[in-house]
Amino acid sequence: MSSKADDGQGNNDDALALHKRLRGKIEVRSRLIIRSMRDLSLLYTPGVASVAVDIARDKKNAYTYTSKWNNVAIVTDGSRVLGLGNIGAEAALPVMEGKAVIFRQFGGVYAFPICLATQDKDEIIRIVKGISPSFAAISIEDIESPKCLMIVDELKSSLDIPVFHDDQHGTAVVVLAALINALRIVGKSINDARITIIGAGAAGYGITNILHRANATNLLVVDSTGIISRDRKENMNDYKLRIAELSNPEQVRGSLEDAVRGADVLIGVSGRAGLVSSKMVRAMSKDAIVFALTNPEPEIMPYIAKKSGARIVATGRSDYYNQINNAIVFPYLMRALLDNNIKSIEWDMLVSVANAIADLVGSNISERYIIPSIMDRRLIDAVNDAVKIFRG
Amino acid sequence: MSSKADDGQGNNDDALALHKRLRGKIEVRSRLIIRSMRDLSLLYTPGVASVAVDIARDKKNAYTYTSKWNNVAIVTDGSRVLGLGNIGAEAALPVMEGKAVIFRQFGGVYAFPICLATQDKDEIIRIVKGISPSFAAISIEDIESPKCLMIVDELKSSLDIPVFHDDQHGTAVVVLAALINALRIVGKSINDARITIIGAGAAGYGITNILHRANATNLLVVDSTGIISRDRKENMNDYKLRIAELSNPEQVRGSLEDAVRGADVLIGVSGRAGLVSSKMVRAMSKDAIVFALTNPEPEIMPYIAKKSGARIVATGRSDYYNQINNAIVFPYLMRALLDNNIKSIEWDMLVSVANAIADLVGSNISERYIIPSIMDRRLIDAVNDAVKIFRG
Repeated sequence: MSSKADDGQGNNDDALALHKRLRGKIEVRSRLIIRSMRDLSLLYTPGVASVAVDIARDKKNAYTYTSKWNNVAIVTDGSRVLGLGNIGAEAALPVMEGKAVIFRQFGGVYAFPICLATQDKDEIIRIVKGISPSFAAISIEDIESPKCLMIVDELKSSLDIPVFHDDQHGTAVVVLAALINALRIVGKSINDARITIIGAGAAGYGITNILHRANATNLLVVDSTGIISRDRKENMNDYKLRIAELSNPEQVRGSLEDAVRGADVLIGVSGRAGLVSSKMVRAMSKDAIVFALTNPEPEIMPYIAKKSGARIVATGRSDYYNQINNAIVFPYLMRALLDNNIKSIEWDMLVSVANAIADLVGSNISERYIIPSIMDRRLIDAVNDAVKIFRG
Repeated sequence: MSSKADDGQGNNDDALALHKRLRGKIEVRSRLIIRSMRDLSLLYTPGVASVAVDIARDKKNAYTYTSKWNNVAIVTDGSRVLGLGNIGAEAALPVMEGKAVIFRQFGGVYAFPICLATQDKDEIIRIVKGISPSFAAISIEDIESPKCLMIVDELKSSLDIPVFHDDQHGTAVVVLAALINALRIVGKSINDARITIIGAGAAGYGITNILHRANATNLLVVDSTGIISRDRKENMNDYKLRIAELSNPEQVRGSLEDAVRGADVLIGVSGRAGLVSSKMVRAMSKDAIVFALTNPEPEIMPYIAKKSGARIVATGRSDYYNQINNAIVFPYLMRALLDNNIKSIEWDMLVSVANAIADLVGSNISERYIIPSIMDRRLIDAVNDAVKIFRG
């Protein structure tokens, strides 16, 4: 999943210097050069009028004559950027530009950052609806939960273009892909493995949904209040209620420790460094799988998790094996959404994508290789094949 | 000024074919290539976090570390596109992309089209304010008048980035530049020349303002109701009232014919083809100057205006001499605004720009050469020099 802040490895100065030198990691470029007044009269007035008229006749022609087919708005209000919290729209810009670079290089997508001066949910919804005619898809980023989930739901129901939510959808896909391979290694089935998810924000909500859709039945989800259940009253919202419906079959109550005890799989998306103790991992079942995905400091350091008996460990960090990073999903998935005319993102499609990504690991699978690298060039075709069966 | 529709010269098929082949005249590109996980860790997480933190500390640092310094939103609601009227957001896209190409090639500006799903004034204002953190300037385009003028005024007073309005500002500059040279040829002074402007939309409003600021005192402005005066009650609005304050020193009433009779200069921005008759031009004073700028069919065809006694004639068309085209202004002016940290566009600055453009014609001035070509490479420095004395 997305990393969350500084890695503490002295890369800050290099990153600052790179950004200062570039003064923008993306640019808007022309795809043709004006060499004469004739050129100008074709690409601009008067010639462009005939193109405008053809689109006025049928809005869909905008996909034929303009870059709309490949334009994606990366929308954020800066309320929950990386692990830095509510740092605002301008501060979110370099992060969104980073996403745009990844979208372009790995997915060929024209992504443009739209960082918002408002953090009001209804205002954000209005603005995104307002700007949608220029775009083929929306990518919602780094907005605090559950506001982001409400925004995505409302936009999904009112727009005729796909609304991708990396924190929710991207994280869910990459976690499921890694989990499929981890379970293969330990010889357990997703169907009955006891899986505990720590964190009930956008990531926890997405992971719960995709695991449920992938036939996981034995899920527990824990937030800062404890295990989420239907009858819990404190610290609930509509999305946690939905989580309760998809998990906790016996509707138990209890603490984080209770939820982790005896679990086969622990998935940490809590945003809280060091939340999981060595003792908790020791209380998990044999061949435990621990995904400690909070960045930059995970819920438990990988070597401690290993020492405490976990057989397979993954984090969000690039300096450990098994990096679970959304970047292996979002550029390829967006490419596939656009190329296959997908208007709405559904969980069964995301399960299909996760399976395709998991399968790329193939016979090289090992405790230290459960997920492909973002640089794996096979991802683009694999994800496209997984999506095209849902073609609109 | 901007052309308005098809040129009737069989360019339509070529324009459609060009647009179909390109499928987008602009693209969002990366300014660096990810070759390793190390690259990724600098441009995206975790390295980018240090950049985000530096901007959170001071929003202005977004100009140092991101492309904000050069990003311009081209905003339209598609309510008055070229001469095609209210054709909507999607149909406006190819026109806005054309502007983006010109912005990039001639001004080096990263301009991105934001075509809006709403035509409500307050909603447009809210959206533009909302998306402003990503941009260094806003360019308002092809919104009907007087709505566009209200939007520009409100945005100007509430945003800390410049709000450029080509229909108003761009047209005003290019008309004044051409007029300065035309008056030089006929040996009349802008100060006492009788100037009649036909049209009181954004273009008429802008031209009235810039001519007033350039010390024109003998102005009349005519709309479909007749000469605009302070005491007129029909078909008025706040902007026409302002026009009445800047023009019509004796506050006369009358028709289009009355306004043109005896005029030294006629500037047509009426949007109505063929509105000016041969008889009207014959009733103008000696050495009459006629700018018939409505596209594609002007208020009077140039050869008819000439035959009727006009000494200098200009249109918006590329197939006649003296093409008065906004494109010779907007890319260079935007470049200068961004490079000189101009936060607010004022009329005295625009007069300075018009003078600089007029001066480029130099000793080659003639009845058929009163305005430089958009391809004139001296424009960028000339406009910058004119703007930099107003540096923020």
